[in-house]
Amino acid sequence: MRKVLMALLLLPLMATAQTVTSPNGNVEVKFSLDNGRPTYEMTYKGKAVVKPSHLGLELVKTKHASKGMEETDLMDGFTVTDTQTSTFDETWKPVWGQTATIRNHYNEMAVTLNQPASKRNIVIRFRVYDDGMGLRYEFPQQNELNYFVIKEEHTQFAMAGDHTAWWIPGDYDTQEYETVESKLSEIRGLMKDAITPNSSQTPFSPTGVQTALQMKTADGLYINIHEAACVNYATMHLNLDDKAMVFESWLTPDAQGTKGYIQTPFNTPWRTVLVSDDARDMLSSNLILNLNEPCALDDVSWIRPIKYCGVWWELIVGRNTWSYTNEYPSVRLGVTDYKNSKPNGTHGANNENVKKYIDFAAANGLDEVLVEGWNEGWEDWAGHSKFDVFDFVTPYPDFDIKMLNDYAHSKGVKLMMHHETSSSVMNYERWMDKAYKLMNQYGYDAVKSGYVGDIIPRGEHHYSQTMNNHYLHAVKEAAKHHIMVNAHEATRPTGLCRTYPNLVGNESARGTEYEAFGGSRPDHTVVLPFTRLQGGPMDYTPGIFETKLDTWSSNPSYVHTTLVGQLALYLVMYSPLQMAADLPEHYEKYMDAFQFIKDVAVDWDDSKYIEAEPGDYITVARKAKGTDNWFVGGKCDENGHKAVVKLDFLDKGRKYECTIYADAKDADYETNPKAYAITKKTVKKGDTLKITEARGGGFAVSLMAK
Amino acid sequence: MRKVLMALLLLPLMATAQTVTSPNGNVEVKFSLDNGRPTYEMTYKGKAVVKPSHLGLELVKTKHASKGMEETDLMDGFTVTDTQTSTFDETWKPVWGQTATIRNHYNEMAVTLNQPASKRNIVIRFRVYDDGMGLRYEFPQQNELNYFVIKEEHTQFAMAGDHTAWWIPGDYDTQEYETVESKLSEIRGLMKDAITPNSSQTPFSPTGVQTALQMKTADGLYINIHEAACVNYATMHLNLDDKAMVFESWLTPDAQGTKGYIQTPFNTPWRTVLVSDDARDMLSSNLILNLNEPCALDDVSWIRPIKYCGVWWELIVGRNTWSYTNEYPSVRLGVTDYKNSKPNGTHGANNENVKKYIDFAAANGLDEVLVEGWNEGWEDWAGHSKFDVFDFVTPYPDFDIKMLNDYAHSKGVKLMMHHETSSSVMNYERWMDKAYKLMNQYGYDAVKSGYVGDIIPRGEHHYSQTMNNHYLHAVKEAAKHHIMVNAHEATRPTGLCRTYPNLVGNESARGTEYEAFGGSRPDHTVVLPFTRLQGGPMDYTPGIFETKLDTWSSNPSYVHTTLVGQLALYLVMYSPLQMAADLPEHYEKYMDAFQFIKDVAVDWDDSKYIEAEPGDYITVARKAKGTDNWFVGGKCDENGHKAVVKLDFLDKGRKYECTIYADAKDADYETNPKAYAITKKTVKKGDTLKITEARGGGFAVSLMAK
Repeated sequence: MRKVLMALLLLPLMATAQTVTSPNGNVEVKFSLDNGRPTYEMTYKGKAVVKPSHLGLELVKTKHASKGMEETDLMDGFTVTDTQTSTFDETWKPVWGQTATIRNHYNEMAVTLNQPASKRNIVIRFRVYDDGMGLRYEFPQQNELNYFVIKEEHTQFAMAGDHTAWWIPGDYDTQEYETVESKLSEIRGLMKDAITPNSSQTPFSPTGVQTALQMKTADGLYINIHEAACVNYATMHLNLDDKAMVFESWLTPDAQGTKGYIQTPFNTPWRTVLVSDDARDMLSSNLILNLNEPCALDDVSWIRPIKYCGVWWELIVGRNTWSYTNEYPSVRLGVTDYKNSKPNGTHGANNENVKKYIDFAAANGLDEVLVEGWNEGWEDWAGHSKFDVFDFVTPYPDFDIKMLNDYAHSKGVKLMMHHETSSSVMNYERWMDKAYKLMNQYGYDAVKSGYVGDIIPRGEHHYSQTMNNHYLHAVKEAAKHHIMVNAHEATRPTGLCRTYPNLVGNESARGTEYEAFGGSRPDHTVVLPFTRLQGGPMDYTPGIFETKLDTWSSNPSYVHTTLVGQLALYLVMYSPLQMAADLPEHYEKYMDAFQFIKDVAVDWDDSKYIEAEPGDYITVARKAKGTDNWFVGGKCDENGHKAVVKLDFLDKGRKYECTIYADAKDADYETNPKAYAITKKTVKKGDTLKITEARGGGFAVSLMAK
Repeated sequence: MRKVLMALLLLPLMATAQTVTSPNGNVEVKFSLDNGRPTYEMTYKGKAVVKPSHLGLELVKTKHASKGMEETDLMDGFTVTDTQTSTFDETWKPVWGQTATIRNHYNEMAVTLNQPASKRNIVIRFRVYDDGMGLRYEFPQQNELNYFVIKEEHTQFAMAGDHTAWWIPGDYDTQEYETVESKLSEIRGLMKDAITPNSSQTPFSPTGVQTALQMKTADGLYINIHEAACVNYATMHLNLDDKAMVFESWLTPDAQGTKGYIQTPFNTPWRTVLVSDDARDMLSSNLILNLNEPCALDDVSWIRPIKYCGVWWELIVGRNTWSYTNEYPSVRLGVTDYKNSKPNGTHGANNENVKKYIDFAAANGLDEVLVEGWNEGWEDWAGHSKFDVFDFVTPYPDFDIKMLNDYAHSKGVKLMMHHETSSSVMNYERWMDKAYKLMNQYGYDAVKSGYVGDIIPRGEHHYSQTMNNHYLHAVKEAAKHHIMVNAHEATRPTGLCRTYPNLVGNESARGTEYEAFGGSRPDHTVVLPFTRLQGGPMDYTPGIFETKLDTWSSNPSYVHTTLVGQLALYLVMYSPLQMAADLPEHYEKYMDAFQFIKDVAVDWDDSKYIEAEPGDYITVARKAKGTDNWFVGGKCDENGHKAVVKLDFLDKGRKYECTIYADAKDADYETNPKAYAITKKTVKKGDTLKITEARGGGFAVSLMAK
């Protein structure tokens, strides 16, 4: 009887819905309690984007429950005790980025909920932008909620239809899958084939997918679900109820299957939904960066965009090796006598070869030279769950670390450090400080780190709370040493580069290396900007000119773009860190095309997305930082594309020297990838460029202000 | 048909048994193949100690098996390809110990086994001493055996009868149980009650027990099973088949349930069986130390035995606190503003209190003062699986680290550092180098570390391979900083202090703190020397004079010995690190008795076990290092004991000033614990001391050469 009475008393509160709209009114988010369960819905220009969806967290019941009491979920039984709304409008300057300034303009609603049964209060905060919204859970410090353990977060995203989605399989350990384009209802049937082999992988559900998830509705809305500011929290996946078309958050577990250890006060990452009826808005959105905290570093003078080449592609392709010797069945750091071992003759990171790259970088204005395989341990680094796999400080006998750095510096070039951890994370943390100090000693200012294989601590996953904390720990410690970080195989970014701009790059998706492992589909790079790049830049390592690998190695793979398509990636795949990944001797055969890589900027005052359709094509124009020069790039899928670029972004009354790097008429990524045409002309604001992109091709344009 | 033929062909080899005997012939170990399964047995003076028992390792089948092939167990299918025997006799000097020199004298047999199915070779090595034997598995580096993952080690110890055993429950996370004395057949029935609560505990089997396991046979043989040199390997438990009376090794698993990642060449720890018909030989055995590698440190000049007091017992008893403030529901390092928080008024590690201990140490010849609770984070350090729980470098506002160290040093005393990790091991490793450097900066030379609560990385156990590697990592890194380590709650020692003599102590058993948590039985300290102390010294922290805690605190517990029984522990519980654990003001009431703690040595040129029976009594005489002085101690259980000490170890013709600290006639650990009598006389070689030990009592004697 008392229960019924309680329900009746709560009825008025449950019925109350609170609404917040975006500054221009296009996006509206409504919050309500559904029988005590937090619920939200979202519309765009009146159309349903997220239908009424529940929010809440399920807690581990028995763990750390004091006094033997069972833990109470933060799922239902709530009443609204307070609602605060506010408006925020600020323009900030990123240390590096696609634009010189970024406007952060939103309307906010913070709903305070009380759960009488547990005497606990939580806050659900919504920030509503013209191009989407973010929501997060906040747990103030309070006597009844100091520590808790998450069993699962149950944030729902109820879709209004069977949308088209560009998805990759949900997985706790890899993001290196090809994107599948399908209806939501088709995910289950396509999942098995979508899960291709990887050195560490843990798929978890036949309808589990990763974020950022790009969708398109039947009536032309583009919807993108991701997260922002994932700090001290597990990475979110989405699991689809493919009858109701409801996505629900699915966090990455730790070795015990639990999903997060929380101490209050604490805020979860933002759960973000981008929406627009124009695909270009997906690419130009700054919503995720805006939902991250401002820069946490006092001094950012040492952070700089980087164009680099390096000893990498020849290793990936298999012509040379990371390892130094084949003499031993296995090696041990500090025990194996490398100096007296027989070199295998294929070690890539040798003095002579590295000097060749340094010379090439110096001659062509590249900032740095990455050298992989410089340090002891590569003979048996992968697949053995080897704890003491690398020490990050001991060079191979044929890599003279002092001489090579001195040589590079004498030519105005820096070496880029490489820390492959083999996912032996406890070992990396033991060596991290010494490794960063070594970098300082020899003048390295950037490190490419790697997390190939299963994680140690064993049972942990690449995207668990502990590992996410590790990646950020590495970035913060690096900042103390004025070191930039480019972490491969780490968790997918969520805009943390705003707060820690020394995180200049991540991989976290299928990079160019897969072109040497059988290839990626031509549409890959016109999907990634909609998905992977939402959270931050990717070190995609483009620039492969000799796309048929069997012309210079025994690798039968080929790159699934034209040569010009590779040039386009320097613009389409935004990153402050861009590699010219091919071998110097390959570039030297096509120096007219390489001129574009020399010219193109890696930091921008402005960016204009001109054309875009997920999986089909992207065309973007960018204004080089601190100059009046523009660069335009277009990339397309296997169907080709006819790009139309109206030059209305140029300065009025000014002339520009325009160099167009286009696919030749008969170019084709499969049959004729290296056919290109370079044309020059003078253009002005209002002119239009019409450029045909070949199958798997693209184009690149430089516009130098006269 | 082929199978039968193979079996027939192998028959001659299977039948071959190889035997190795101890130098004096008392111990004999026989190896044979039982249908391809390695098998050993062991006798003492012709009596069965270990009946025929199988040896072997079961491997994880699917993990890291290359090319999809299933892994082959290293259990059977073996043939003997080589047998090598040899003799070793060497005398070495420990850096500290019970004797000035240690003789390492054994006969060895190494049997090389080939497993034709896998083309793998392993070696089983036996070292047979007059007081027992050790065996280990060795895996040479070979093409067919480079890496493997252990599912379980199946080393059997088949007992010849239903022996009496002194056992504690097998557990992956705690050793802090009271010993149960029972027949082997009674273990199962007694297990449930034996598992008392602990802050982290994972019992695994109703017949699983820990080593060192002390047993006694019906015909008077003492048998002890343990391990030596546990390096890069999980700690072994013993699981009893209580029908066949066969113990089998049961390793501690990692978070995924696997038990060891091995890279060859590799040797397992030694599996040891001590045996004698004299219980005293169990205590004087050096077999486990001898099976460890020689000292690995070039410079040991900085390692020294230590007598210390400190801010500890008052915290354990509950009169003061480790924490500084009660103001916050929880705290965060680097965020919580301790300086402006309200002190709780009970913080023990405050300047004034620490100076009191320093003064006491200086006045009484104690070397160091331990201070627990000196650093930020104690407000919510336990039970929350808190990753960033301590930083090991930030003192509380009322602990002036520089002033206090300077003050101590000015009086010839050092402070002892305290690193409670709360088992957040990844966090400790992040801070370890900075923490050791801080110690160097302020002149600390020893650290007590602690591992209370469940391990982070979560799912790992206190005694897993990864954690064992961590403890040794901490010791090795400490050595680089000339720091001695005394690790509490770490894995039970296996003689590694021979190789790393800066590992001056461990807890790894139920220490004196339990006397404040309800108490330990009086026989506890006449069991531990037979069990826990086999692998190395224990920081038992004796010396509690005010045994009834309610006389000075609100703690209702009492110490289950007499005051004199506490004095006896400085001899019976050998350790190069001895605490005078009670409060200075308590000692000041009994300075005549405290004189023994002042006088007693902590390092020895010789030790003579005079009387011993597990769980009943131990009497030992020790000669102080570099002197002609002897100290004798006797401890007994709840039944009292009449000790007879024949002084035949004294120098002939020399006189000794003998001070006897004995229980008073009416002393009793429960009713009259502080009644003692101190008598002095002059003695000479050949004299006999007859001393009555009270219930739960003991005695202590100093013999100063005139």
